[in-house]
Amino acid sequence: MILKKGKVLPGNVLKVDSFLNHQMDTSLFCEMGKELYKLFKDEGITKILTIEASGIGIAAVVSLSFGVPVLFAKKHKSKNLVGDFYTSKVESFTHGGVYDILVSKDFLSKDDRVLIVDDFLANGNALVGLIDLVNDAGAVVVGAGIAIEKGYQGGGDKLRERGIRVESLAIVEKMDSESGEIIFR
Amino acid sequence: MILKKGKVLPGNVLKVDSFLNHQMDTSLFCEMGKELYKLFKDEGITKILTIEASGIGIAAVVSLSFGVPVLFAKKHKSKNLVGDFYTSKVESFTHGGVYDILVSKDFLSKDDRVLIVDDFLANGNALVGLIDLVNDAGAVVVGAGIAIEKGYQGGGDKLRERGIRVESLAIVEKMDSESGEIIFR
Repeated sequence: MILKKGKVLPGNVLKVDSFLNHQMDTSLFCEMGKELYKLFKDEGITKILTIEASGIGIAAVVSLSFGVPVLFAKKHKSKNLVGDFYTSKVESFTHGGVYDILVSKDFLSKDDRVLIVDDFLANGNALVGLIDLVNDAGAVVVGAGIAIEKGYQGGGDKLRERGIRVESLAIVEKMDSESGEIIFR
Repeated sequence: MILKKGKVLPGNVLKVDSFLNHQMDTSLFCEMGKELYKLFKDEGITKILTIEASGIGIAAVVSLSFGVPVLFAKKHKSKNLVGDFYTSKVESFTHGGVYDILVSKDFLSKDDRVLIVDDFLANGNALVGLIDLVNDAGAVVVGAGIAIEKGYQGGGDKLRERGIRVESLAIVEKMDSESGEIIFR
């Protein structure tokens, strides 16, 4: 699908909004769910965690393969938050600045074994923020299931070195916006 | 599920974040998809449209019953937008102010027959904005499939009077934050 419908734009941008993160091909998401279930089925996963907005559709469909609920972290501009939330901070590479992410304390506990699902993994900032949230709750991060990893940005390998199990369904190693060529790891 | 897990809070707030719009019970969303398919199956729907963020999970799972892609409108603070988007404006009752919603022109055309799916329908502002977007594209709004309509806020009935087919899986007619009682239409 990446080769067929993805577009390489200047600035190392991979445009996949026709099937992944604006218009969503949910039958593809079903196949992604089956593959992630194959990889993580023995891990006793109790919850899938993602982050708004573009991770939600994938995580929702993937959760059907696991038969567990999905929780999505909400993004807020940094400010004081009212209520009982686990929060952490994410630095945005694309938009600049720092934002808070939060999930209600009602929905994560020390008994949870969490699979994090997201559409993209680039520098890994969002994933690190989500891992911090889960750790704050005393729950276990079983791993991360990612649709597309930008291997050349190094975030995935940094997390693997920390011992996090990161399974990316596609890892783009190199792209050329002139020729449109995409090379996978 | 609303009676079992919903909570009525002061200010006519119905908290359903344990299964609908923060933590998401996607097996319930499957049942919602089957019911909406039963209602709309003869309408030749080609695309499901929702709005970020809390509509995305429901729309993604519901789309599996229809076998069509999902498109989600993105929210932006009002500003000039670059690129080819259909846009419209939505007045936010909860957060105040006006924001833009947008979808890429690549993914809506005059041949589309669109079902709008969302978690809540209250005053109907978001739904009106989405209908305007679809009309701008020259596409047809077949109707709206809503998880929970707040009947007492009147947005749904106003749209029905305009001839829009609005199918809400639950319509809350009245709530009492003292007793916690919820009365359905």
